[in-house]
Amino acid sequence: MSAEPSADIALIGLAVMGQNLILNMNDHGWVVCAYNRTVDKVDNFLANEAKGTQVVGARSLQEMVAKLKKPRRVMMLVKAGAAVDAFIDQLVPLLEAGDIIIDGGNSEYHDTQRRCEALEKKGLYFIGSGVSGGEEGARHGPSLMPGGHIQAWPHIKDIFQCLMLHSCVQVFHQWNEGELDSFLIEITANILKFNDEDGVALVEKIRDAAGQKGTGKWTAISALDYGTPVTLIAESVFARCLSSMKDERVEASVLLSGPASSSYTGDRTAFVECLRQALYASKIVSYAQGFMLLREAATQFGWQLNYGGIALMWRGGCIIRSQFLGKIKEAFTKQPSLSNLLLDSFFVDAVRGAQEGWRQVVAQSVLLGVPTPALSSALAFYDGYRTDKLPANLIQAQRDYFGAHTYELLASPGKFHHTNWTGTGGNVAASTYMA
Amino acid sequence: MSAEPSADIALIGLAVMGQNLILNMNDHGWVVCAYNRTVDKVDNFLANEAKGTQVVGARSLQEMVAKLKKPRRVMMLVKAGAAVDAFIDQLVPLLEAGDIIIDGGNSEYHDTQRRCEALEKKGLYFIGSGVSGGEEGARHGPSLMPGGHIQAWPHIKDIFQCLMLHSCVQVFHQWNEGELDSFLIEITANILKFNDEDGVALVEKIRDAAGQKGTGKWTAISALDYGTPVTLIAESVFARCLSSMKDERVEASVLLSGPASSSYTGDRTAFVECLRQALYASKIVSYAQGFMLLREAATQFGWQLNYGGIALMWRGGCIIRSQFLGKIKEAFTKQPSLSNLLLDSFFVDAVRGAQEGWRQVVAQSVLLGVPTPALSSALAFYDGYRTDKLPANLIQAQRDYFGAHTYELLASPGKFHHTNWTGTGGNVAASTYMA
Ligand SMILES: NC(=O)c1ccc[n+]([C@@H]2O[C@H](COP(=O)([O-])OP(=O)(O)OC[C@H]3O[C@@H](n4cnc5c(N)ncnc54)[C@H](OP(=O)(O)O)[C@@H]3O)[C@@H](O)[C@H]2O)c1
Ligand SMILES: NC(=O)c1ccc[n+]([C@@H]2O[C@H](COP(=O)([O-])OP(=O)(O)OC[C@H]3O[C@@H](n4cnc5c(N)ncnc54)[C@H](OP(=O)(O)O)[C@@H]3O)[C@@H](O)[C@H]2O)c1
Repeated sequence: MSAEPSADIALIGLAVMGQNLILNMNDHGWVVCAYNRTVDKVDNFLANEAKGTQVVGARSLQEMVAKLKKPRRVMMLVKAGAAVDAFIDQLVPLLEAGDIIIDGGNSEYHDTQRRCEALEKKGLYFIGSGVSGGEEGARHGPSLMPGGHIQAWPHIKDIFQCLMLHSCVQVFHQWNEGELDSFLIEITANILKFNDEDGVALVEKIRDAAGQKGTGKWTAISALDYGTPVTLIAESVFARCLSSMKDERVEASVLLSGPASSSYTGDRTAFVECLRQALYASKIVSYAQGFMLLREAATQFGWQLNYGGIALMWRGGCIIRSQFLGKIKEAFTKQPSLSNLLLDSFFVDAVRGAQEGWRQVVAQSVLLGVPTPALSSALAFYDGYRTDKLPANLIQAQRDYFGAHTYELLASPGKFHHTNWTGTGGNVAASTYMA
Repeated sequence: MSAEPSADIALIGLAVMGQNLILNMNDHGWVVCAYNRTVDKVDNFLANEAKGTQVVGARSLQEMVAKLKKPRRVMMLVKAGAAVDAFIDQLVPLLEAGDIIIDGGNSEYHDTQRRCEALEKKGLYFIGSGVSGGEEGARHGPSLMPGGHIQAWPHIKDIFQCLMLHSCVQVFHQWNEGELDSFLIEITANILKFNDEDGVALVEKIRDAAGQKGTGKWTAISALDYGTPVTLIAESVFARCLSSMKDERVEASVLLSGPASSSYTGDRTAFVECLRQALYASKIVSYAQGFMLLREAATQFGWQLNYGGIALMWRGGCIIRSQFLGKIKEAFTKQPSLSNLLLDSFFVDAVRGAQEGWRQVVAQSVLLGVPTPALSSALAFYDGYRTDKLPANLIQAQRDYFGAHTYELLASPGKFHHTNWTGTGGNVAASTYMA
């Protein structure tokens, strides 16, 4: 009892959720102190499921509190309702200002609000965090939905995020089995589950400032030169540039406001499927744009390109290798003169199937303040591409108004006209510039 | 031909910009000698637009040069690129040391640098002067942005300044009328209400395939080169490229599906206000990006730029002139070393006030299938810029995984690490590439 406090967090409640969350936290390097109303279950857990781990136990709340580093973090996974209030009442006299109580069960939200208010008066922080995923989720990656005193977040963020990261890993493994099967999805799953020596996911420690070799930049410059709208690669290059302005972003994050709410309240499992669709559809658009650029270069240089063969070669060994390139090969085998990948029947159907989720993801991201430049740029391209009449007539009118750049009429493409819009300018037209 | 040289300046190129600049100079008392490759245009101009003015003409470059006072000032307003070089080559043998050639078109700046160097060797001065303001600007007050041999400035200063000054007074009233706070908004209103002879709005008959002169493209390419995320201009250039693929779009519109519903059912008046906010916020982001690019170029070339002065000059006479540029000038006056326009308190508040509508517009457009590439790209930039921690850590982990490109840790920026993620790769890191 006189030893130094050694535990990072206490967890009360050794039923199925509690036990599994403890083992999950232990996997990520956290030292957890376990406690349960029926104290025998503590001994039992230590002697069995938790044997050989760093988990410590306590036979009283006093002992449990004494083992915790400060600010103390106490999480409950007990039956929702009276049990939560009973433990809170017992904990209050044992804790001190700045300590944090987390209710990890699925409490009714009015109860959570009430507890927040009551504990705030005592200088304690309270977090109510819904949990989903069941036993398997608790053990390998639950969905956690924390809410409550924002001041507590810095102290619990690392624990919560490492628990959740794991579920992301599972998502990528699943995606790797379906339409998204690709090397990059595969390594993403592997990266997310790669822990540093201290048990924390290494990716969380990596500085978010992306470098680049220049190939994306060159592609975007060629696209601009050829007048081919390769928007995804350009946005991706710029997104990396923006990420590398780390210090400026940290400064801006304090000054610039986001939307009123920034947390998603809908069904998470359904949303993960929407994310998969958004990624799939955007990937299709990105390849379609890439092949547009190849086609344009081929036209300008008089090349004969075997587009199917190109897809097949990429499928062989480069980092964009994926199942999906097989579908591209098929499209060009069916129709070697295919003008755009998006017009092949397989991709027409693929985008039709994915667009609902794609639109949901971009709309939600925009409303919640999460930047998704590549997904939204892909969608804007798709919607532009499938629109027979765009407002570029207004652009042409503006250019003719201020610069006498002339315009074509819908009725007679190829003939250029100038209008004296104001009645005061001259009648001389500039020569016509094309992209 | 044996008469005393009488012309103050020669102007080559009788398309819309050249003709209007000549008439503008004439208004201010300068005697201009007009010349054009297609010589008939000289006669035509003298017989019509320039009738009754002091403008003189020349039917050859020899004749033109003979009519000029010394040091000779020859200004070209011809198509950027080969036409400029062709005229320079013809002029060089006709001119003598100390004479001045001015390229008044929008040439790419690498070309201008090259021409400066080449002409310096021949004892001639060269000025590359970007021009903006279109037909109306050229006639009544363009924005001119001269750069080049400083020794030439005393000889052209009076001509340049009278052209620019005039506009600030005369056009001021027009710009300030009503609530329209910018030239482009104003002309858009005029265009929309302009009916063709049959009473139908002319804009509706104009083909929706936008052309471009190349200035947007060059800006986007510079942005990629400098690693500055100027996403709005890039997206806008690509949007024009996409619009020009008219035939392909018409074909795609039949095959590609949109969202289930594509009509807005909410309150239209409220939504129009949201649109105003979206336009305003996106405009702020676009200027912020533009000034980021100027700042980056200034850093790389060791330039001292007067950012407030630049805003003020644009406010004077170019097509982006707007009230708004006054706010930019104020921001830089308050804090000349301001790192980003978005961090100035006026713009912090402006975006805070506009962001709710902005997010609504982009989300609704995405759900209804309306492409808004510039608005959504601006929003993605804003959200990325105000985010202290972006998922670029995952990008760095991926790059290190597949290419051993190394990464930095949050804890120790500047030091680069490589991890053997699979346990099977080597431990050799690739060199680190930065944007
Ligand atoms: N099981 C799931 O799949 C699942 C999934 C998602 C969310 N959840 C949520 O997670 C929380 C925990 O669920 P669970 O299934 O692990 O456990 P549970 O069956 O809901 O509750 C059992 C735990 O609560 C304690 N307890 C019950 N009544 C108590 C009282 N009056 N005073 C003190 N302690 C009391 C029990 O202690 P004793 O051992 O002393 O009885 C035991 O530790 C709940 O909010 C649940 O809704 C569960
Ligand atoms: N129009 C605008 O609103 C605007 C606005 C801002 C800046 N600018 C810039 O101002 C400059 C002039 O623009 P503009 O619209 O007035 O004219 P333009 O349409 O760009 O060019 C037409 C002029 O260039 C001459 N020209 C073209 N190719 C030539 C060649 N190979 N050799 C010799 N001469 C050649 C033409 O002569 P011929 O008559 O013999 O064909 C004509 O005088 C450009 O750099 C443009 O980017 C224009």
